[in-house]
This record gives sequence, structure tokens and C-alpha cells, in this order.
Amino acid sequence: MYTQFELMRELSIATPSKIVLLVIDGLGGIPDISGKTELETAHTPNMDKLAAEGICGLLQTAGAGITPGSAPGHLGLFGYDPLDYRIGRGVLEALGINFPLMPGDIAARGNFCTIDAAGLITDRRAGRISTEENRKRCLLLDGLEFNGVKTIVKAVTGHRFVAVFRGDGLSAELGDTDPQQLGTPPKKVPVLAPEATYTADIVNRFLSEARERLSAHPPANMILLRGFSKKPVFPSFADIYKLKSAAIASYPMYRGLAKVVGMSILETGPNLEDELATLKKHFADFDFFFMHVKDADAAGEDGDFMRKVSAIEKVDKILPQIMELNPDVLAITGDHSTPATMAGHSWHPVPCLLYSKWCRPDRLAEFSEFTCRQGSLGQIPAASLMPQLMAHALKLTKYGA
Amino acid sequence: MYTQFELMRELSIATPSKIVLLVIDGLGGIPDISGKTELETAHTPNMDKLAAEGICGLLQTAGAGITPGSAPGHLGLFGYDPLDYRIGRGVLEALGINFPLMPGDIAARGNFCTIDAAGLITDRRAGRISTEENRKRCLLLDGLEFNGVKTIVKAVTGHRFVAVFRGDGLSAELGDTDPQQLGTPPKKVPVLAPEATYTADIVNRFLSEARERLSAHPPANMILLRGFSKKPVFPSFADIYKLKSAAIASYPMYRGLAKVVGMSILETGPNLEDELATLKKHFADFDFFFMHVKDADAAGEDGDFMRKVSAIEKVDKILPQIMELNPDVLAITGDHSTPATMAGHSWHPVPCLLYSKWCRPDRLAEFSEFTCRQGSLGQIPAASLMPQLMAHALKLTKYGA
Repeated sequence: MYTQFELMRELSIATPSKIVLLVIDGLGGIPDISGKTELETAHTPNMDKLAAEGICGLLQTAGAGITPGSAPGHLGLFGYDPLDYRIGRGVLEALGINFPLMPGDIAARGNFCTIDAAGLITDRRAGRISTEENRKRCLLLDGLEFNGVKTIVKAVTGHRFVAVFRGDGLSAELGDTDPQQLGTPPKKVPVLAPEATYTADIVNRFLSEARERLSAHPPANMILLRGFSKKPVFPSFADIYKLKSAAIASYPMYRGLAKVVGMSILETGPNLEDELATLKKHFADFDFFFMHVKDADAAGEDGDFMRKVSAIEKVDKILPQIMELNPDVLAITGDHSTPATMAGHSWHPVPCLLYSKWCRPDRLAEFSEFTCRQGSLGQIPAASLMPQLMAHALKLTKYGA
Repeated sequence: MYTQFELMRELSIATPSKIVLLVIDGLGGIPDISGKTELETAHTPNMDKLAAEGICGLLQTAGAGITPGSAPGHLGLFGYDPLDYRIGRGVLEALGINFPLMPGDIAARGNFCTIDAAGLITDRRAGRISTEENRKRCLLLDGLEFNGVKTIVKAVTGHRFVAVFRGDGLSAELGDTDPQQLGTPPKKVPVLAPEATYTADIVNRFLSEARERLSAHPPANMILLRGFSKKPVFPSFADIYKLKSAAIASYPMYRGLAKVVGMSILETGPNLEDELATLKKHFADFDFFFMHVKDADAAGEDGDFMRKVSAIEKVDKILPQIMELNPDVLAITGDHSTPATMAGHSWHPVPCLLYSKWCRPDRLAEFSEFTCRQGSLGQIPAASLMPQLMAHALKLTKYGA
């Protein structure tokens, strides 16, 4: 039985046609007391027109009822089944600060925590110290060496940091040192496979050293590590789809996710206008653009329904400028739903719109969660979107004679 | 996990009830500038009535976005997952000229080409020589023998022919000799598996001999071979469904495809009226009829929107005569879409209508791509249609007690 990647590899051809995948992070919602979702509330004449002329559907990332994080959310949109293709939490944290992981590096997500005189955890987040305090402490742990294995420790925000172990023969088959409860000591790192014994020894020596060095710096006087992982090697976008692809994203984590599948990363600014300018500037140079817009998700996470509505409206306003570039395919969707009423990611399937002159139009009245349910894309795994984008860009040859 | 075939084998029973599967080749379309598809434009009162009284849906052959050739298109309709059941290009070409392949035969599709004095390809289609010129050259290559392996070379049309290698111990694990570019020599046949070394040797000796024999006959002074394949052995229609099945098709390739799944092939003429007469004549003799109508696809391939519209209308006109035969199930669908605006096969799912007195009617206003999206068959793999035909003909017993 053929996998989707095998089929794409066999059928895909490089052509000059252009695909724009516009990801409005957290796009999907559920109604608030008004009875309407954020997308239904937003005034989006441009999206509505495309919904009438294109095709629509609902995307599920990791199956019905499953709430995806940002990594599986995006991997799904890129065509990678997120249940098969996983990225560890340590690696994700490293991607998020644009840290250049090398092959063989083991990355872990770190938290500063507080321990008492007996060594028992009294606060798993060290009183949520400031990023500045965080940075100072990271300097105490950065650049140590154990048996030739170097530790690289970089602050993220608040109490969070990334710890990278760089050296030969390391394994990521390690459990978390965070016991997930107070009143117990941080765990020694659990060994999940025999080949990780050596790495565990290094990590445990690092943890001892860290405890010593941090002892004079409460409340952040100890660390907890989790999500030990290596940068995964995925089949590349170029290999599977023969696409020359580029990512336009103002947040490092999304650039990192795009890099994992082999996209070129384009320099851009913090705003939607910056991203649009980047798209215009490089439109001739690539045939696939992943453009990531963060604001709707941020508003949803904050539980701010109306701010999410305006974030969506802002995207709608720039659509004519994207359409002027005359992409062969424009898809608008999200990596997951973030209903403002839930103030977080959710499992609700994500509305998706695909416009191309080769569509058999769905003739829907508007772009919304409700109308998408009647669209001809159907309710499909997010990873099934890529073949549709490829088909509508005429980048797939016929299967069989 | 039960496969569909296992379930059909277990539940199917032979009954006198009759199923007619009417395949309008290339039926599906997309709107032209009028905003309507070919099927929407066609005046089809009989199909529309059946759409109101029957059930409708959209069929996908090899997955969303995948454009199927005729072989996977038909295998899907016959219930065979076309990603699992494949027919090589050489075999298909042989089926297309009704060549009686024997077990063990290796068939390849051949092109005459032009090479220069240095042996480099200057035209991959030999100036598209006439079929008559083709026939003359095939006689030079037909009936040769290498180590007891006989070559059978039969003209198709234009520059195309079928080459069959008949002898003991042959393998089809060979690549194409066509380098797919000009200015390079034809390739020696690539060996894809060790067991094909002997066959490759025979094929290469044939290629040398062909070059010698054709040297005095430019522009067709060399050949290219591709799609080496053996006639596949598929589970038969009779075995899976306990059906006594027959094919009515004026084009050899569709008769060939029906033969591969074990249908009886009924003699018929070139027109729709001939096929209808054949159906009437043999209606008492079989319980499953596959009736293939080519014209809509041919018009679509030619980009002739209105000719495709009238081809569909022509089928609609004969429907009352089919209904008079009182089939227990009549299904009307296509093997793939061929939008006239695209002048070729496409990935768009194919409208499908199933009428039986045992339907729970969809009460749709007409038979069209748009209404089929709302039909109760849903948007399904083409290979899922057969169980519905069987059920509505009351040819499936209850599953479980």
C-alpha cells in the first residue's frame, strides 16, 4: 500500500505555478454568547468571495477530538501525519529561540525551580523569575563540560530555558527529571533505553553541578529538565513535492518548523504588512509560500473574542494584495482552533479555503466554520490538504494510464 | 481487520437480480465561463428524475487531488483499490489492441524514434509516422527469436506499438529504455531486480537487432520501450461478488480492463445504440452489466464543452429504454472527470447516481456535481461503490446474527 509521500514523490513535478498557504494561527473558534464564532463575526468580504469561487472544508490535525500543539498543527498542514512525525519538546524550545541545533545534539526544555534545604521542590517555576534573572543564571550553567560533552544553556522567557548537550555518542532516550509535584526532590534523569546510560550519567553530573552553582541564587536554585530530544530528520518538502518553498513568519518557532521540512526562511518584520512586503519581494523566487500570521491565536489565547475578530479582519483586508500577485493556488486556514471562549487551543476542526481557477466551486455564501462543513474538501486530516494544493496548482501528473 | 473483498466474499450471494453500471467516461467537469459544468448545462430530465428517487454522491479513485488514468478509474469502479491493484503500461497497451497476452508474457509499450548517425535521439516519436508506416516496420521486428524467446510486435497507432516477449523464465522487473530527452542514445534496458538479468539480456539483443533492421528506415530508425509488465492476476468478479458479469464497450481497452477482472465480453458496435441493443439482447443472460460510453470523455479531451454536453444528453435520451428492462440497480457515473476547460483527465471527484427501488431517496433537484455533494452516498472512494450496488440489488446477506 502506497503512502501519501510515495504517491506525491511519484506524481509531483516541478512547475512555475505558485502556491500560497496562508496560516492564520488559531483560526477556528466556537460561538460566544452572540451565537457566532470569531470568523462568523468578522467582516471578511474577500474571504467570502473566495469561498464562493473556491472550495472549502474542515481540517483535523491528529484526529477527531485531539487538540494539537503548534508543531503537529503545522506538520499536518505541510502534509506530514503528526502521529508519525513527532518533534520533541526540547527541540521545539530550541527552534523557538532560533538555536542552531547540530546533528547529534540533545536538547531539553528546562525550568528553573525552587528547592528547600532538604532538596525538596517548593516551586516548580521558581516564582516565575524575570527573563533577566533567568539570563544571569543561564550564564552560570552555559559552557560546562563533562567528559568532553559540552552544555549549552540559553534563556527563553520567564523561568524557561533550553539545555543542549553536545558531544559524541549521546542518546535522547531519557525521561523527565520534573516529578510534576511539590515536596519531592527533582528526579535523577530516567534511562528509557540501555544506550542512554552514558548520556544519563553526563546529565546527572550536570544536574549536580547546576545545584551547586545555583545554591546561592534562590528562588531559582535548581533546574528541571524534560523533553530530551534530537532534531528529527524528515523527508524534505523538495524531495516529496519538488517544491522550491519559503516560509514567511515573524515568530522563530514557525520558522523553525518550516526549516525542519526544508523550507527556505525569508527575513521579515514583526507585522502583517512586513510579511506581505516579504511575500511580494520574493514572489518570483519560490513556488510555495508558507505565510504565518500569529495575532488571531494570541488574541484567542488571551480569551479576547473581539481582538481575534479584528485580527481576522486585518488579514481579510490584505487579501486583495495577495490576489494581485496572481497565485495559482491560495489556501487560507489555521494550524488549530483557538476559541476565545476557551482561551486556548482546541480540538475543533479548522476551517479551510482553497482558491484556484481550477476549482469546482462550492458556491458557499461565506467563509465560516458552518459553511466549511458543506464544502467539497470535506472534513479531512490536515495532512490531506497538500495533495489538493498540488493538484490545483497542476503539479501532479496522472496516476496510471 | 476485514478487507472489503473478504466481506463481499463472505456476504455475497448469487441472485437473479440485475445491476447495470453505466460508465460515462470522463463524466465530471468544472464550470466554464457560463458558471455551469457540462452536466449542469446538459438537459437531462431522466437522470434528474433518478437523482430525486435514488441516491447520489461523489467518487474519488485514488485519493483527493489524484488524477487517475482510465485503468485505475475503472478498477476503482469495479471495487479494486487502484493503489493496490496496478496494471502496467505495456499490458494496458496490449489490452488496448485486444492482444491475447498469455501467462508469463512480458509486454512493453514501444515508440518508434529517430536517431542520428552517432546514435543520439533526435525525435522521440519519429516524426509521428503514420499507422501504415508503423505497421510496415513492426513486420521487421515481429517473430524474431532470441534464445528461444519470441518477440511479438504489433502496431498500435501513429508511432506506438506493443512488444511482447514470450518464453520461459522472463521477469518484468525492467526499467524504461526511453531516456525522456533528446541528444542522448536510447538506454540499455535497466535491470530493477536480479531475477531480470536474463530478460534484460534478451531485450538488449532485441534492441540491437531492431536498430540494425530499422537503420535503412528513417525517420523511424530505432525504438524505445517502456512499462515492461505482466498481465496481473486479480481476484475475479465471480469469486468476490458471485456475479455473472458482462462488459459492453466499443473500445478495446475497456473490454481489456473488464477481462482482467473476469467479465465476459459481449460483441457490440461502435455506437451508443449498438451498446443498448447488446444490453437488451443479453439482458437475460447475466446479472451484472458494465456498459461503457466513450464520447463524453473524447469531447472533454478535445476541450469541446458543448460536444461533451450533447454526449451526456445522448445518454440521457436512452435511459428510458434501459429502465424498461427493469434493472434492480442502475448506477450512472464516470471513471474520472474530464473537464472540457482542462482538455484532459482531472482529479475532481466524479458524480455518481444509484437508482434502485430499495433506495432511501436523496430527493435531489437534479443530477449534477453540485447536488451530488449533498447526496447520501457521500464523497467516497470509487472502490466503495460496489458494496452499495450489491446491497441495493439484495445480493448481500446480513453480517452477524
